[in-house]
Amino acid sequence: MTALFERHRETLRAALDAAAKRDYWSAYSEIPSGKIYGETARDDGLAAYEARLATPFEMAGHPVQHRVGAEVSPYGPSLGISYPAASADALVSASRAAARQWASASVEARVGICLEILARLNAHSFEMANAVMHTTGQGFAMAFQAGGPHAQDRGLEAVAYAYAEMSRTPTEAIWTKPQGKSEPIVLEKHWRIVPRGISLVIGCNTFPTWNSYPGLFASLATGNTVIVKPHPAAILPLAITVEIIRQVLAEEGFDANVALLAADASGSEITKELVQHPAIAIIDYTGSGGFGDWVRAHAGNADVYTEEAGVNSIVIGATDNFAGMCGNIAFSLSLYSGQMCTAPQDIFVPRSGIDTDEGHKSFDEVAAGIALAVDGLLSDPARAAGVCGAIANPASLARVAEARSLGRVVRDSAPIEGLDDARTATPLILAVDAADEAAYGEERFGPIAFVVAVDDVADGVSRAALLAERKGAITAALYETSEARILAAADRFAEAGVNLSVNLTGGIYVNQSAAFSDFHVTGANPAGNASLTDAAFVANRFRVVMWRRPAAA
Amino acid sequence: MTALFERHRETLRAALDAAAKRDYWSAYSEIPSGKIYGETARDDGLAAYEARLATPFEMAGHPVQHRVGAEVSPYGPSLGISYPAASADALVSASRAAARQWASASVEARVGICLEILARLNAHSFEMANAVMHTTGQGFAMAFQAGGPHAQDRGLEAVAYAYAEMSRTPTEAIWTKPQGKSEPIVLEKHWRIVPRGISLVIGCNTFPTWNSYPGLFASLATGNTVIVKPHPAAILPLAITVEIIRQVLAEEGFDANVALLAADASGSEITKELVQHPAIAIIDYTGSGGFGDWVRAHAGNADVYTEEAGVNSIVIGATDNFAGMCGNIAFSLSLYSGQMCTAPQDIFVPRSGIDTDEGHKSFDEVAAGIALAVDGLLSDPARAAGVCGAIANPASLARVAEARSLGRVVRDSAPIEGLDDARTATPLILAVDAADEAAYGEERFGPIAFVVAVDDVADGVSRAALLAERKGAITAALYETSEARILAAADRFAEAGVNLSVNLTGGIYVNQSAAFSDFHVTGANPAGNASLTDAAFVANRFRVVMWRRPAAA
Repeated sequence: MTALFERHRETLRAALDAAAKRDYWSAYSEIPSGKIYGETARDDGLAAYEARLATPFEMAGHPVQHRVGAEVSPYGPSLGISYPAASADALVSASRAAARQWASASVEARVGICLEILARLNAHSFEMANAVMHTTGQGFAMAFQAGGPHAQDRGLEAVAYAYAEMSRTPTEAIWTKPQGKSEPIVLEKHWRIVPRGISLVIGCNTFPTWNSYPGLFASLATGNTVIVKPHPAAILPLAITVEIIRQVLAEEGFDANVALLAADASGSEITKELVQHPAIAIIDYTGSGGFGDWVRAHAGNADVYTEEAGVNSIVIGATDNFAGMCGNIAFSLSLYSGQMCTAPQDIFVPRSGIDTDEGHKSFDEVAAGIALAVDGLLSDPARAAGVCGAIANPASLARVAEARSLGRVVRDSAPIEGLDDARTATPLILAVDAADEAAYGEERFGPIAFVVAVDDVADGVSRAALLAERKGAITAALYETSEARILAAADRFAEAGVNLSVNLTGGIYVNQSAAFSDFHVTGANPAGNASLTDAAFVANRFRVVMWRRPAAA
Repeated sequence: MTALFERHRETLRAALDAAAKRDYWSAYSEIPSGKIYGETARDDGLAAYEARLATPFEMAGHPVQHRVGAEVSPYGPSLGISYPAASADALVSASRAAARQWASASVEARVGICLEILARLNAHSFEMANAVMHTTGQGFAMAFQAGGPHAQDRGLEAVAYAYAEMSRTPTEAIWTKPQGKSEPIVLEKHWRIVPRGISLVIGCNTFPTWNSYPGLFASLATGNTVIVKPHPAAILPLAITVEIIRQVLAEEGFDANVALLAADASGSEITKELVQHPAIAIIDYTGSGGFGDWVRAHAGNADVYTEEAGVNSIVIGATDNFAGMCGNIAFSLSLYSGQMCTAPQDIFVPRSGIDTDEGHKSFDEVAAGIALAVDGLLSDPARAAGVCGAIANPASLARVAEARSLGRVVRDSAPIEGLDDARTATPLILAVDAADEAAYGEERFGPIAFVVAVDDVADGVSRAALLAERKGAITAALYETSEARILAAADRFAEAGVNLSVNLTGGIYVNQSAAFSDFHVTGANPAGNASLTDAAFVANRFRVVMWRRPAAA
């Protein structure tokens, strides 16, 4: 039962080591190269994806009462895949039936299975890239990385932390209490890990695997059964995931229903029934703050871990690399057309301008510099398509159209050439004043950014931090040359519970968070009540139960 | 700022080592001896306690709008102490004002302060013993141990676990990501611990310190400010605690209002206002399940850790030490007159009797054996007073009176001789059938026990485990000679989330849980949603926030 644990032991050890040091480390290569994944991996992955299209997705032994599925690629075509679907009660019933055996497996058996699943998911990264690309609209390279190895790294991180917490308590110990001159009292004690129950993972449209894997793998490793509820527009990536989980479970002699897919149809979602079901003990949710409020209010005694939404800010005070700054910000605004929960929306710039290595730049020159950098980045349509991808949800396009009236247009949004069947939009950049909080003070999900005129950098930091405290924020960025101002901003953003990136000008972006080093979301402001992934994310997913008796003499 | 950390570093190290090994260990001696605590410690402690009586309890700088206090010793006399009291808003406001400085202290500074507080509490153990005795009714020896060193050990445990979790992430690291043939990307990253906000600790009448210290110290160590809401009948032990905390805080240059006392009066409690206050981020609650339901439903986004109530069971299948078993059970029933959350209430015995080292014993003989052992234990009035103590709440006496009609009286309850001004009651033992679930299936807090006739040991285990799942249970005990039946019971009670003690016949009792080895409450059944103390109890009390920037070349 622990052969898989032995097979992947070194990966687990390296993951724990990396998490303690927080230097760069990754178990799964982010480079979509044939040298790493096999010379035919790219073609095989595409073929595997295409073979899924226009057919029923079969899952042997999975509850099925009807079939659902209406995914349409943001790049145009319908996927035409139908998935097995069942009521909340039917899913809970199947999950319960699978629970006892999974709960009684050893920690090593479960962790070994999770590590094997991750290795197999890694081998399917090219297929997953296509599935993620055509459900989220991400460009291929990003879909490969974020949907594949980066998501797998986050899953591994959760498994590693869960293993660390579960193995903190020994499975047995001898307890010897001295009794003065009398014989000591000697007890033998035995501890075991007991799961919480059924874990519900509610996926989102834009990052179906990356945002779901931490909760999914944390719950599986700690002995809970899992019901995975994908967004109706992005079922395939999680269906493939659940398929691979079920394969490994079955091979290892477990009931495959330890992992279930709760596919449903837009307009008749079963999310609320599942959230309110008394058998659900853990909920991982990624999505809007509005529905997040509902989930937190209706989850009963279930523990709820959320990533919701927020307004991410950049504050510009000064820079010694104006071109690098503008280029870096341009990429952050353009990447996946601003549909990342980590993408900046508001760029606070002093009304009187800033000092740079190119001399003083006025507010308008800063705004224009960013706009020009976006134009340059996206001047080649193929690169624009790769960077921006397509728009997952038509509502985001509508928001771009509405947003044009919210300020002075510094750079207009436009469709991307050559992606004629796709929903696309390059970044819209608007200039507003700090007083126009109705414009920039709300999350406007999609390729919409505001350059906001403020008194000075301190005013910008204060407004950005307040926004984070009130509306939530996952990232913040600062450009500043004064060390004192940098440290003051670090204090203020820490108080607001936001991770801050300072003076990024090269090939790393505020949007990016690296597994084993960056905690994604702090859990300390309304953008989410939990962090991916830390000890708090895993330690509550199980309990420790003991029995003890006098030790045999 | 870290001198205190250095002073107590070895205690912290030993605590973490003990928690990892889970062998016996204690930082604070449970022996109320002059050799350990100083030859005059007992008299000094009594004098310090007596000096508190009939005077106002002053706390310099503490919010005070009026004064409250109507404590009456279960042994008779009124304490006559009045405490500073303020509205929920006034307390929250003072707590907020103290927050920023405390949050910005280093982990080592805060942990050092917590360890110093615990050392000073330890030095006050005799004073505390008197305070606990005369608010809870515990006998002196128990009040010393449970109110003093055992509570301090639990507090230390929370501090140690909090330190381990906070120091899991380095305060800084260099992150170097290779870029093939190009120069690597190198970032410097800085992490800090950010507290959740204001922590509310709601104490109980029977174990004001033991049950409060874990949450109190876990929250303090992790940088939260703390408002301690004692039970109106047991304010003094927590007032002394808060006084000592405030002394150390002030000496170290912090606002003493980091720790506040929310004293209130019976009938006009401010608990609900505090629980519902949006500034409260963490709630630790010990008390009834009914009010626990209310707290969990009205806490908003605050994290809630509870120890509520339950029905603890003993199941008897067979024993090779009938006298030892009866004596052990008798002590468990008598200790503090059954007012421990760990005290057994239901004793399941096969209808056809059991095999023992004294031959077969019928159901009635088992019940009589336990009753006789109680009689023997309590035959000496002085010992009876020491073991049973007094009844904290008059309602418990009333419950004993009402319970007499619930079954056949095997042993009647009676007052304890020589404690004429005290509220006392020895154990009432009733015989009932498994069918009489209305009698034994509810928690009947106080010295009330049922010997319940069941089909066999498996029936008893099943009923006890089901009761735990439905009503909650903190402890379970089993007497059995078959290894297979012991292991089956261990499985079943683990599934019900109850810690199980098997074949206890000597000087260790099912009621007792030892810091650094036994987890108190599993959090896995309705008796409580958290465990004292594990990683899950501390890891959510803080967040980790980062800032990063390109490393200087």
